[in-house]
Amino acid sequence: MKKKIAIVLSGCGNKDGSEIHESVSLIIHLSQLDAEVQFFAPDQNFTVVNFLTGEKLSEARNVMIESARISRSQMRPLKELAAKDFDGLALPGGSGAAINLSNWASAGAQCKVIPELEKAIIDFHKESKPIAAICIAPTLVARVLGKHKVTLTIGDDSKTIAEIKKTGAIHEICPVDDFVSDREHKIITTPAYMYDAKPHQVFKGIGGLAQELVEMA
Amino acid sequence: MKKKIAIVLSGCGNKDGSEIHESVSLIIHLSQLDAEVQFFAPDQNFTVVNFLTGEKLSEARNVMIESARISRSQMRPLKELAAKDFDGLALPGGSGAAINLSNWASAGAQCKVIPELEKAIIDFHKESKPIAAICIAPTLVARVLGKHKVTLTIGDDSKTIAEIKKTGAIHEICPVDDFVSDREHKIITTPAYMYDAKPHQVFKGIGGLAQELVEMA
Repeated sequence: MKKKIAIVLSGCGNKDGSEIHESVSLIIHLSQLDAEVQFFAPDQNFTVVNFLTGEKLSEARNVMIESARISRSQMRPLKELAAKDFDGLALPGGSGAAINLSNWASAGAQCKVIPELEKAIIDFHKESKPIAAICIAPTLVARVLGKHKVTLTIGDDSKTIAEIKKTGAIHEICPVDDFVSDREHKIITTPAYMYDAKPHQVFKGIGGLAQELVEMA
Repeated sequence: MKKKIAIVLSGCGNKDGSEIHESVSLIIHLSQLDAEVQFFAPDQNFTVVNFLTGEKLSEARNVMIESARISRSQMRPLKELAAKDFDGLALPGGSGAAINLSNWASAGAQCKVIPELEKAIIDFHKESKPIAAICIAPTLVARVLGKHKVTLTIGDDSKTIAEIKKTGAIHEICPVDDFVSDREHKIITTPAYMYDAKPHQVFKGIGGLAQELVEMA
Protein backbone atom coordinates (compact mmCIF):
# COMPACT_ATOMS: atom_id res chain seq x y z
CA MET A 1 0.00 0.00 0.00
CA LYS A 2 1.31 3.40 -0.98
CA LYS A 3 1.53 5.93 1.82
CA LYS A 4 -0.73 8.92 1.22
CA ILE A 5 0.87 12.27 2.06
CA ALA A 6 -0.93 15.65 2.05
CA ILE A 7 1.36 18.55 1.15
CA VAL A 8 0.15 22.04 2.08
CA LEU A 9 1.56 24.83 -0.08
CA SER A 10 1.36 28.58 0.58
CA GLY A 11 2.10 30.09 -2.84
CA CYS A 12 5.03 29.84 -5.25
CA GLY A 13 8.34 31.36 -4.20
CA ASN A 14 10.22 31.96 -0.95
CA LYS A 15 9.39 35.69 -0.59
CA ASP A 16 5.58 35.42 -0.66
CA GLY A 17 4.77 31.70 -0.82
CA SER A 18 6.25 28.22 -0.52
CA GLU A 19 10.00 27.95 -0.97
CA ILE A 20 10.32 26.28 -4.39
CA HIS A 21 13.54 24.26 -3.88
CA GLU A 22 12.20 22.88 -0.60
CA SER A 23 8.82 21.97 -2.11
CA VAL A 24 10.38 20.28 -5.13
CA SER A 25 12.97 18.44 -2.99
CA LEU A 26 10.09 17.06 -0.94
CA ILE A 27 8.14 16.09 -4.08
CA ILE A 28 11.16 14.31 -5.62
CA HIS A 29 11.95 12.35 -2.46
CA LEU A 30 8.32 11.33 -1.89
CA SER A 31 8.15 10.22 -5.53
CA GLN A 32 11.34 8.18 -5.06
CA LEU A 33 9.81 6.62 -1.92
CA ASP A 34 6.69 5.69 -3.94
CA ALA A 35 4.35 7.77 -1.76
CA GLU A 36 1.11 9.14 -3.19
CA VAL A 37 0.90 12.90 -2.75
CA GLN A 38 -2.00 15.32 -2.85
CA PHE A 39 -1.52 19.09 -2.77
CA PHE A 40 -3.62 21.57 -0.81
CA ALA A 41 -3.52 25.35 -0.44
CA PRO A 42 -5.89 27.96 0.94
CA ASP A 43 -8.28 29.61 -1.53
CA GLN A 44 -7.38 33.18 -0.51
CA ASN A 45 -5.50 36.15 -1.97
CA PHE A 46 -2.04 37.22 -0.82
CA THR A 47 0.32 40.17 -1.12
CA VAL A 48 2.63 39.64 -4.09
CA VAL A 49 6.33 40.52 -3.83
CA ASN A 50 8.57 41.51 -6.75
CA PHE A 51 11.43 38.99 -6.43
CA LEU A 52 13.97 41.35 -8.01
CA THR A 53 13.30 44.46 -5.92
CA GLY A 54 11.62 43.01 -2.81
CA GLU A 55 8.82 45.55 -3.23
CA LYS A 56 5.20 44.64 -2.47
CA LEU A 57 2.89 44.85 -5.47
CA SER A 58 -0.72 46.00 -5.49
CA GLU A 59 -2.00 43.19 -7.72
CA ALA A 60 -3.92 40.33 -6.13
CA ARG A 61 -3.00 36.69 -6.69
CA ASN A 62 -4.57 33.59 -5.18
CA VAL A 63 -2.54 31.20 -3.02
CA MET A 64 -4.17 28.07 -4.42
CA ILE A 65 -3.75 29.10 -8.06
CA GLU A 66 -0.09 30.15 -7.66
CA SER A 67 0.75 27.05 -5.57
CA ALA A 68 -0.49 24.93 -8.48
CA ARG A 69 2.58 26.07 -10.42
CA ILE A 70 4.73 23.93 -8.11
CA SER A 71 2.38 20.93 -8.21
CA ARG A 72 1.87 20.97 -12.00
CA SER A 73 -1.80 21.87 -11.51
CA GLN A 74 -2.68 19.10 -9.05
CA MET A 75 -4.43 21.05 -6.26
CA ARG A 76 -7.34 21.01 -3.82
CA PRO A 77 -8.66 23.72 -1.51
CA LEU A 78 -7.16 23.42 1.98
CA LYS A 79 -10.62 23.32 3.54
CA GLU A 80 -11.08 19.86 1.96
CA LEU A 81 -8.07 18.39 3.78
CA ALA A 82 -9.19 15.68 6.23
CA ALA A 83 -6.63 13.78 8.33
CA LYS A 84 -8.64 10.58 7.98
CA ASP A 85 -7.88 10.46 4.23
CA PHE A 86 -4.08 10.55 4.64
CA ASP A 87 -1.17 8.81 6.36
CA GLY A 88 0.92 11.93 6.88
CA LEU A 89 1.09 15.72 6.48
CA ALA A 90 3.98 17.79 5.08
CA LEU A 91 4.56 21.55 5.21
CA PRO A 92 7.34 23.10 3.09
CA GLY A 93 8.78 26.43 4.23
CA GLY A 94 9.05 29.84 2.62
CA SER A 95 7.63 33.15 3.83
CA GLY A 96 4.18 32.00 2.78
CA ALA A 97 4.03 29.77 5.88
CA ALA A 98 4.58 32.81 8.08
CA ILE A 99 2.36 35.29 6.19
CA ASN A 100 -0.26 33.29 4.25
CA LEU A 101 -0.79 30.20 6.44
CA SER A 102 -0.40 32.22 9.65
CA ASN A 103 0.77 35.61 10.85
CA TRP A 104 3.89 34.22 12.52
CA ALA A 105 6.04 36.83 10.68
CA SER A 106 4.39 39.66 12.61
CA ALA A 107 3.01 37.98 15.76
CA GLY A 108 5.48 35.16 16.51
CA ALA A 109 4.36 32.86 19.34
CA GLN A 110 1.06 34.79 19.55
CA CYS A 111 0.23 34.17 15.88
CA LYS A 112 -2.95 32.68 14.51
CA VAL A 113 -2.62 29.72 12.17
CA ILE A 114 -5.42 29.78 9.56
CA PRO A 115 -8.26 27.59 10.85
CA GLU A 116 -8.14 24.91 8.09
CA LEU A 117 -4.46 24.27 8.77
CA GLU A 118 -4.78 24.50 12.56
CA LYS A 119 -7.51 21.84 12.39
CA ALA A 120 -5.38 19.63 10.12
CA ILE A 121 -2.37 19.82 12.47
CA ILE A 122 -4.55 19.00 15.50
CA ASP A 123 -6.27 16.12 13.69
CA PHE A 124 -3.13 14.47 12.29
CA HIS A 125 -1.58 14.67 15.78
CA LYS A 126 -4.70 13.25 17.43
CA GLU A 127 -4.76 10.36 14.95
CA SER A 128 -1.07 9.73 15.64
CA LYS A 129 -0.16 10.41 12.02
CA PRO A 130 3.22 12.05 11.30
CA ILE A 131 3.62 15.74 10.49
CA ALA A 132 6.76 16.90 8.63
CA ALA A 133 7.65 20.59 8.53
CA ILE A 134 10.52 22.35 6.75
CA CYS A 135 12.37 25.65 7.30
CA ILE A 136 10.08 28.19 9.03
CA ALA A 137 6.98 25.92 8.89
CA PRO A 138 7.83 24.13 12.18
CA THR A 139 6.84 27.37 13.95
CA LEU A 140 3.21 26.68 12.99
CA VAL A 141 3.44 23.18 14.45
CA ALA A 142 4.93 24.72 17.61
CA ARG A 143 2.09 27.27 17.78
CA VAL A 144 -0.60 24.57 17.50
CA LEU A 145 1.05 21.67 19.39
CA GLY A 146 3.51 23.47 21.69
CA LYS A 147 1.38 22.69 24.75
CA HIS A 148 2.14 19.01 24.11
CA LYS A 149 5.87 19.81 24.41
CA VAL A 150 6.71 18.63 20.90
CA THR A 151 10.39 18.72 19.92
CA LEU A 152 11.38 20.34 16.64
CA THR A 153 14.02 22.41 14.82
CA ILE A 154 14.27 25.52 12.71
CA GLY A 155 18.10 25.36 12.63
CA ASP A 156 19.96 27.75 14.93
CA ASP A 157 18.32 31.17 14.57
CA SER A 158 18.18 32.46 18.15
CA LYS A 159 15.33 34.94 17.69
CA THR A 160 13.02 32.33 16.15
CA ILE A 161 14.06 29.75 18.75
CA ALA A 162 13.14 32.18 21.55
CA GLU A 163 9.65 32.61 20.04
CA ILE A 164 9.22 28.86 19.60
CA LYS A 165 10.05 28.27 23.27
CA LYS A 166 7.19 30.61 24.26
CA THR A 167 4.76 28.12 22.71
CA GLY A 168 5.91 25.34 25.03
CA ALA A 169 7.66 23.44 22.25
CA ILE A 170 11.22 22.19 22.72
CA HIS A 171 13.80 23.32 20.18
CA GLU A 172 16.82 21.30 19.06
CA ILE A 173 19.60 22.88 17.02
CA CYS A 174 20.15 20.94 13.77
CA PRO A 175 22.41 21.35 10.72
CA VAL A 176 20.94 21.91 7.25
CA ASP A 177 21.55 18.40 5.93
CA ASP A 178 19.98 16.62 8.90
CA PHE A 179 16.54 16.52 10.53
CA VAL A 180 14.96 16.19 14.00
CA SER A 181 12.44 13.44 14.71
CA ASP A 182 10.11 13.57 17.72
CA ARG A 183 9.02 9.94 17.64
CA GLU A 184 6.58 10.31 20.53
CA HIS A 185 4.57 13.02 18.79
CA LYS A 186 5.56 12.04 15.24
CA ILE A 187 6.87 15.50 14.35
CA ILE A 188 9.71 15.57 11.81
CA THR A 189 11.51 18.85 11.01
CA THR A 190 14.51 20.07 9.01
CA PRO A 191 15.92 23.63 8.80
CA ALA A 192 16.59 23.88 5.02
CA TYR A 193 16.84 27.53 3.95
CA MET A 194 16.67 28.83 7.51
CA TYR A 195 20.40 28.59 6.83
CA ASP A 196 22.21 30.34 3.97
CA ALA A 197 22.48 26.87 2.46
CA LYS A 198 23.26 25.31 -0.89
CA PRO A 199 20.46 23.59 -2.81
CA HIS A 200 21.97 20.10 -2.51
CA GLN A 201 22.29 20.49 1.27
CA VAL A 202 18.60 21.41 1.50
CA PHE A 203 17.81 18.43 -0.73
CA LYS A 204 19.71 16.09 1.60
CA GLY A 205 18.04 17.33 4.79
CA ILE A 206 14.61 17.01 3.19
CA GLY A 207 15.55 13.53 1.96
CA GLY A 208 16.05 12.38 5.55
CA LEU A 209 12.80 14.02 6.61
CA ALA A 210 10.84 12.45 3.75
CA GLN A 211 12.14 8.97 4.50
CA GLU A 212 11.26 9.31 8.19
CA LEU A 213 7.81 10.65 7.24
CA VAL A 214 7.04 7.70 4.98
CA GLU A 215 8.39 5.19 7.50
CA MET A 216 6.24 6.64 10.28
CA ALA A 217 3.14 6.99 8.08
CA MET B 1 38.25 25.94 -10.66
CA LYS B 2 34.46 25.82 -10.46
CA LYS B 3 32.66 25.42 -13.74
CA LYS B 4 30.45 28.43 -14.55
CA ILE B 5 27.05 27.54 -15.96
CA ALA B 6 24.49 30.02 -17.30
CA ILE B 7 20.87 28.87 -16.82
CA VAL B 8 18.23 30.57 -18.97
CA LEU B 9 14.73 30.59 -17.45
CA SER B 10 11.47 31.49 -19.20
CA GLY B 11 9.12 32.16 -16.28
CA CYS B 12 7.92 30.09 -13.33
CA GLY B 13 5.69 27.10 -14.03
CA ASN B 14 5.24 24.58 -16.84
CA LYS B 15 2.14 26.14 -18.44
CA ASP B 16 3.57 29.64 -19.10
CA GLY B 17 7.22 29.52 -18.06
CA SER B 18 10.04 27.21 -17.00
CA GLU B 19 9.02 23.80 -15.69
CA ILE B 20 9.73 24.08 -11.95
CA HIS B 21 10.69 20.45 -11.16
CA GLU B 22 13.10 20.42 -14.10
CA SER B 23 14.67 23.75 -13.15
CA VAL B 24 15.11 22.77 -9.50
CA SER B 25 16.45 19.31 -10.41
CA LEU B 26 19.07 21.04 -12.55
CA ILE B 27 19.90 23.50 -9.75
CA ILE B 28 20.28 20.73 -7.14
CA HIS B 29 22.53 18.60 -9.36
CA LEU B 30 24.72 21.54 -10.39
CA SER B 31 25.03 22.48 -6.70
CA GLN B 32 26.03 18.90 -5.85
CA LEU B 33 28.61 19.02 -8.66
CA ASP B 34 30.00 22.27 -7.20
CA ALA B 35 29.30 24.31 -10.33
CA GLU B 36 28.74 28.05 -10.11
CA VAL B 37 25.41 29.03 -11.64
CA GLN B 38 24.06 32.34 -12.89
CA PHE B 39 20.44 32.81 -13.95
CA PHE B 40 19.23 34.78 -16.94
CA ALA B 41 15.78 35.53 -18.34
CA PRO B 42 14.39 37.94 -20.92
CA ASP B 43 13.08 41.27 -19.62
CA GLN B 44 9.71 41.02 -21.39
CA ASN B 45 6.07 40.43 -20.49
CA PHE B 46 4.25 37.16 -21.12
CA THR B 47 0.71 35.79 -21.20
CA VAL B 48 -0.17 34.39 -17.76
CA VAL B 49 -2.07 31.11 -17.46
CA ASN B 50 -4.32 30.12 -14.54
CA PHE B 51 -2.82 26.77 -13.50
CA LEU B 52 -6.14 25.46 -12.18
CA THR B 53 -8.35 26.24 -15.16
CA GLY B 54 -5.80 26.55 -17.99
CA GLU B 55 -7.38 29.86 -18.97
CA LYS B 56 -5.22 32.76 -20.19
CA LEU B 57 -5.34 35.84 -17.95
CA SER B 58 -5.29 39.46 -19.05
CA GLU B 59 -2.79 40.58 -16.43
CA ALA B 60 0.81 41.21 -17.48
CA ARG B 61 3.76 39.62 -15.72
CA ASN B 62 7.46 39.88 -16.54
CA VAL B 63 9.49 36.78 -17.44
CA MET B 64 12.59 37.93 -15.57
CA ILE B 65 10.72 38.83 -12.38
CA GLU B 66 8.70 35.60 -12.27
CA SER B 67 11.74 33.46 -13.15
CA ALA B 68 13.48 34.93 -10.08
CA ARG B 69 11.03 32.92 -7.92
CA ILE B 70 12.85 29.75 -9.01
CA SER B 71 16.34 31.21 -8.55
CA ARG B 72 15.66 32.78 -5.14
CA SER B 73 16.07 36.28 -6.66
CA GLN B 74 19.43 35.71 -8.33
CA MET B 75 18.77 36.98 -11.87
CA ARG B 76 20.25 38.95 -14.76
CA PRO B 77 18.66 40.18 -18.00
CA LEU B 78 19.23 37.71 -20.83
CA LYS B 79 20.74 40.43 -23.03
CA GLU B 80 23.75 40.47 -20.63
CA LEU B 81 24.55 36.79 -21.25
CA ALA B 82 27.93 36.45 -22.99
CA ALA B 83 29.34 33.00 -23.84
CA LYS B 84 32.87 34.17 -23.03
CA ASP B 85 31.92 34.53 -19.34
CA PHE B 86 30.72 30.92 -18.93
CA ASP B 87 31.80 27.31 -19.41
CA GLY B 88 28.36 26.00 -20.33
CA LEU B 89 24.73 26.88 -21.02
CA ALA B 90 21.60 25.12 -19.68
CA LEU B 91 17.97 25.46 -20.79
CA PRO B 92 15.21 23.89 -18.65
CA GLY B 93 11.92 23.06 -20.35
CA GLY B 94 8.35 24.12 -19.77
CA SER B 95 5.99 25.87 -22.19
CA GLY B 96 7.91 29.10 -21.61
CA ALA B 97 10.67 27.78 -23.89
CA ALA B 98 8.15 27.38 -26.71
CA ILE B 99 6.15 30.59 -26.16
CA ASN B 100 8.42 33.09 -24.34
CA LEU B 101 11.91 32.17 -25.59
CA SER B 102 10.62 31.37 -29.07
CA ASN B 103 7.37 30.79 -30.93
CA TRP B 104 8.03 27.06 -31.41
CA ALA B 105 4.57 26.27 -29.99
CA SER B 106 2.87 27.94 -32.96
CA ALA B 107 5.54 27.90 -35.70
CA GLY B 108 7.53 24.69 -35.06
CA ALA B 109 10.61 24.33 -37.24
CA GLN B 110 9.91 27.79 -38.75
CA CYS B 111 9.94 29.48 -35.34
CA LYS B 112 12.03 32.45 -34.29
CA VAL B 113 14.18 32.08 -31.16
CA ILE B 114 14.42 35.43 -29.38
CA PRO B 115 17.62 37.18 -30.56
CA GLU B 116 19.46 37.20 -27.19
CA LEU B 117 19.05 33.44 -26.84
CA GLU B 118 19.75 32.71 -30.49
CA LYS B 119 23.03 34.62 -30.16
CA ALA B 120 23.92 32.77 -26.94
CA ILE B 121 23.31 29.35 -28.54
CA ILE B 122 25.39 30.29 -31.60
CA ASP B 123 28.22 31.70 -29.45
CA PHE B 124 28.44 28.78 -26.99
CA HIS B 125 28.54 26.39 -29.96
CA LYS B 126 31.19 28.46 -31.78
CA GLU B 127 33.35 28.52 -28.63
CA SER B 128 32.91 24.74 -28.29
CA LYS B 129 31.22 25.12 -24.91
CA PRO B 130 28.48 22.61 -24.00
CA ILE B 131 24.77 23.37 -24.22
CA ALA B 132 22.32 21.31 -22.15
CA ALA B 133 18.60 21.42 -22.93
CA ILE B 134 15.69 19.72 -21.18
CA CYS B 135 12.19 18.64 -22.24
CA ILE B 136 10.92 20.88 -25.09
CA ALA B 137 13.95 23.24 -24.96
CA PRO B 138 16.06 21.06 -27.32
CA THR B 139 13.75 22.25 -30.12
CA LEU B 140 15.32 25.72 -29.81
CA VAL B 141 18.80 24.22 -30.11
CA ALA B 142 17.58 22.31 -33.18
CA ARG B 143 16.16 25.50 -34.68
CA VAL B 144 19.44 27.41 -34.23
CA LEU B 145 22.01 24.64 -34.79
CA GLY B 146 20.08 22.13 -36.93
CA LYS B 147 22.10 23.01 -40.01
CA HIS B 148 25.17 21.59 -38.20
CA LYS B 149 23.32 18.25 -37.89
CA VAL B 150 23.38 18.21 -34.09
CA THR B 151 21.94 15.12 -32.41
CA LEU B 152 19.41 15.56 -29.61
CA THR B 153 16.29 14.15 -27.95
CA ILE B 154 12.87 15.28 -26.83
CA GLY B 155 11.79 11.74 -25.88
CA ASP B 156 9.51 9.94 -28.33
CA ASP B 157 6.77 12.41 -29.33
CA SER B 158 6.40 11.81 -33.07
CA LYS B 159 4.90 15.20 -33.97
CA THR B 160 7.71 17.12 -32.27
CA ILE B 161 10.32 14.77 -33.74
CA ALA B 162 8.95 15.42 -37.26
CA GLU B 163 9.33 19.18 -36.72
CA ILE B 164 12.85 18.77 -35.32
CA LYS B 165 13.93 16.81 -38.39
CA LYS B 166 12.87 19.72 -40.62
CA THR B 167 15.61 21.83 -38.97
CA GLY B 168 18.32 19.40 -40.08
CA ALA B 169 18.92 18.13 -36.55
CA ILE B 170 19.07 14.38 -35.86
CA HIS B 171 16.66 13.01 -33.26
CA GLU B 172 17.35 10.05 -30.97
CA ILE B 173 14.56 8.47 -28.92
CA CYS B 174 15.50 8.43 -25.23
CA PRO B 175 13.76 7.32 -21.99
CA VAL B 176 12.97 9.84 -19.25
CA ASP B 177 15.74 8.80 -16.86
CA ASP B 178 18.52 8.94 -19.46
CA PHE B 179 20.04 11.62 -21.70
CA VAL B 180 21.57 11.98 -25.17
CA SER B 181 25.04 13.44 -25.59
CA ASP B 182 26.31 14.76 -28.92
CA ARG B 183 29.99 14.90 -28.04
CA GLU B 184 31.04 16.40 -31.37
CA HIS B 185 28.78 19.41 -30.97
CA LYS B 186 28.62 19.30 -27.16
CA ILE B 187 24.81 19.20 -27.06
CA ILE B 188 23.30 17.33 -24.10
CA THR B 189 19.54 16.70 -23.90
CA THR B 190 17.04 14.80 -21.75
CA PRO B 191 13.26 14.44 -22.28
CA ALA B 192 12.01 14.98 -18.68
CA TYR B 193 8.32 15.97 -18.68
CA MET B 194 7.95 15.40 -22.43
CA TYR B 195 6.86 12.08 -20.91
CA ASP B 196 4.07 11.67 -18.37
CA ALA B 197 6.86 11.00 -15.88
CA LYS B 198 7.35 10.86 -12.14
CA PRO B 199 9.38 13.60 -10.46
CA HIS B 200 12.22 11.27 -9.39
CA GLN B 201 12.56 9.95 -12.96
CA VAL B 202 12.91 13.53 -14.25
CA PHE B 203 15.43 14.18 -11.46
CA LYS B 204 17.51 11.18 -12.55
CA GLY B 205 17.57 12.10 -16.24
CA ILE B 206 18.59 15.65 -15.41
CA GLY B 207 21.25 14.28 -13.04
CA GLY B 208 22.94 12.52 -15.93
CA LEU B 209 22.65 15.61 -18.12
CA ALA B 210 24.12 17.86 -15.41
CA GLN B 211 27.10 15.59 -14.83
CA GLU B 212 27.84 15.41 -18.55
CA LEU B 213 27.47 19.21 -18.81
CA VAL B 214 29.96 19.86 -16.01
CA GLU B 215 32.41 17.25 -17.33
CA MET B 216 32.33 18.79 -20.82
CA ALA B 217 32.50 22.39 -19.54
